Amino acid sequence: MPTAQLIDGKAIAEQIHSETGARVQALAARGVTPGLIFIRVGDDPASQAYVRMKEKKAASLGIRSQTLVYPGDFPEAELLAKIRTLNADVDVHGILVQAPLPSHISETLVFSTVAPEKDVDGFNPVNVGKLLLGAEDGFRSCTPAGVHELLIRSGIPTAGAEVAILGRGNIVGKPLAAILLQKAKHANATVTLLHSRSRNIAEHCRRADIVVAAMGQAHFVKADMVKPGATVIDVGVNRIDDPSDKRGYRLVGDVEFDALLEVAGHITPNPGGVGPMTIAMLLSNTVLAAEKLAGAR
Amino acid sequence: MPTAQLIDGKAIAEQIHSETGARVQALAARGVTPGLIFIRVGDDPASQAYVRMKEKKAASLGIRSQTLVYPGDFPEAELLAKIRTLNADVDVHGILVQAPLPSHISETLVFSTVAPEKDVDGFNPVNVGKLLLGAEDGFRSCTPAGVHELLIRSGIPTAGAEVAILGRGNIVGKPLAAILLQKAKHANATVTLLHSRSRNIAEHCRRADIVVAAMGQAHFVKADMVKPGATVIDVGVNRIDDPSDKRGYRLVGDVEFDALLEVAGHITPNPGGVGPMTIAMLLSNTVLAAEKLAGAR
Repeated sequence: MPTAQLIDGKAIAEQIHSETGARVQALAARGVTPGLIFIRVGDDPASQAYVRMKEKKAASLGIRSQTLVYPGDFPEAELLAKIRTLNADVDVHGILVQAPLPSHISETLVFSTVAPEKDVDGFNPVNVGKLLLGAEDGFRSCTPAGVHELLIRSGIPTAGAEVAILGRGNIVGKPLAAILLQKAKHANATVTLLHSRSRNIAEHCRRADIVVAAMGQAHFVKADMVKPGATVIDVGVNRIDDPSDKRGYRLVGDVEFDALLEVAGHITPNPGGVGPMTIAMLLSNTVLAAEKLAGAR
Repeated sequence: MPTAQLIDGKAIAEQIHSETGARVQALAARGVTPGLIFIRVGDDPASQAYVRMKEKKAASLGIRSQTLVYPGDFPEAELLAKIRTLNADVDVHGILVQAPLPSHISETLVFSTVAPEKDVDGFNPVNVGKLLLGAEDGFRSCTPAGVHELLIRSGIPTAGAEVAILGRGNIVGKPLAAILLQKAKHANATVTLLHSRSRNIAEHCRRADIVVAAMGQAHFVKADMVKPGATVIDVGVNRIDDPSDKRGYRLVGDVEFDALLEVAGHITPNPGGVGPMTIAMLLSNTVLAAEKLAGAR
C-alpha cells in the first residue's frame, strides 16, 4: 500500500517562477529588464531541447533571453573571447554555456571565463568555492539548489538529519553536499557522499533520513535500501531500452519509484520532481544577478 | 598495552622540507628564488610566533621571505591595496595573510584579494572551488593538505575507506572532505562530515576506518568512539588550565591520546603530528607557485 507523499517538483517550480516573475516586475519599475544569454555549440539535440525550454520559460516571466549558436568546430579561443565580450556587456546579467561542449573545448576553462557575477549556472570555481565556504554572495548551481528548495518547501527538516548523497559529480553530488553540511538555516545536515568506490552503500542509505540519488544508474536505489519514512530525492535521468516506446527507449530515474512508494515518507516523482526545479533556480539566479547589478539586493 | 603505531608528523614534515629544498635548488639553477610575503596585522602573540617559525623554516630552505607588520587599526582598504601591489610584483610568489585579522577587516575580502596563483594558503574561493571540483591546478590549503600527506606517506589506504571528519571549519574540515572524496589516487574515500548539529557522532566514528578530529574540543574523541585498528588524526589545538605549567595552561588535542594508543592502529601525536605538516605544505606551495611562474611545472 503506497504511503509516501509525493514531492511535487512541478508545482514547487511554478511557485518559484511566480515569485521570480514578481521580482522581474519589481525590476521593471526601476527600468531594468533581466537579460540572459544562452550559448550552444554544436547540434546536440538534447541541448537544443533544453535551451528551447529555458528560453520559453524565461520569456514567459519577462526575462529577455538570446541564444547564440556556434558550429561544432567553433574554436575555443573565439568562444572565450565571446564570453569576455558578454562579461563586459551591462545589459547581460546571466550567461549560460550549455554543456556538453565538443571535446576540443575545455569546459573548465569556459566555466572559469564566465564572470562570477554573471555565472547563473554556478559552475565558475569562485562560486563553487563560496558555496563550500558558506559565503552567501555567490551563485549556487541550479540542480543542487533546486533539490535544496524541494526539501525546504516540502517542510523536510535537514538540521541533524543523516543525508546520503549517491554520486559525487560536480553538477549535483558535490555542490549539494556543500549546501547541506553548512552551519546555516535549512542545512546543518550530517552528509555522507557515496560513490563508485564506497563500500556498504546500502547500509549508508538505510541509515539516512534523506537519500539523494544522483549517480546516473537506472533504478539503483531499491526499497530495501531505504529506511521506512525517509525522504527520497531522485535526480537521475537514464535511458533504458523500451521497444514499446516509439523512440525505442524511455527515461527513468536512479530509484525504483514504485517499490519505494511503499517505504518512503516523501519521494519525488521522476519526471516531475527535480527536473522542473533546475530551470526555476536558473531563472531565479538570473533575476538575482540583475537585482545585484541594479543595487536592489 | 599500547598497540598503535605513531604517525610521526615531524619526521614526515622534515622529509617534505628536504624535497622542497631540492626543488628550491632546481629553481636556483634557472635563476629563480621563491619569494614569500607574510602579512601580519596587530600584535597577536600567537600570530607573531607562527610567522617567526614559518620565516625561519623558509630561510633554511632558501626561500626568500619578508614580513610586513601593520598596526591593529590599519585600514582595510590600505591592506587590500598593499595586497594588490604584491599581486603585481613578479618577485613575489606567495602571499600569506596571517589570521586572525582585527574585526574591522573582512577575512573573506582579504583572502579573495590575494591573487589565486599566489594564494599559497589556499583560502581564495577560486582555490577552494577548484579543490571541490577536483581540478588539480589550484592551491590546497595547508592543514588539510598536510593531513592528506600524513595518510599517504604512512601508507594508510583511503580508497573505499570510511572517513569521519569531526568539525566543518573552512580551514580543515570542509577542505579535507573535499580532498578525500575526490575520484582520484589517494582519495576515493567515503566521507562523513560531523559537526555540532550531528546526531550519533560516536556511532559514526566507531564505523570509520579513519577519524580526523578537527572541531576544537579538548579530548572529545575517546577510546570507545574508535574502531580497533582505525587511524586517528588529531588536528585540534586546545588550551586547558594547568596550574602545574608555568604558563598556567597547556595545549591538548581533540582526542584522548593515551587511551587511544591502546585502540587505534595508527595515531598522530599532538604536538608533533599535524602541526609540523602545515608549514611543510605552505613552503611546498610557495615553491610550487614559483615553479609555475617559471614554467617549471
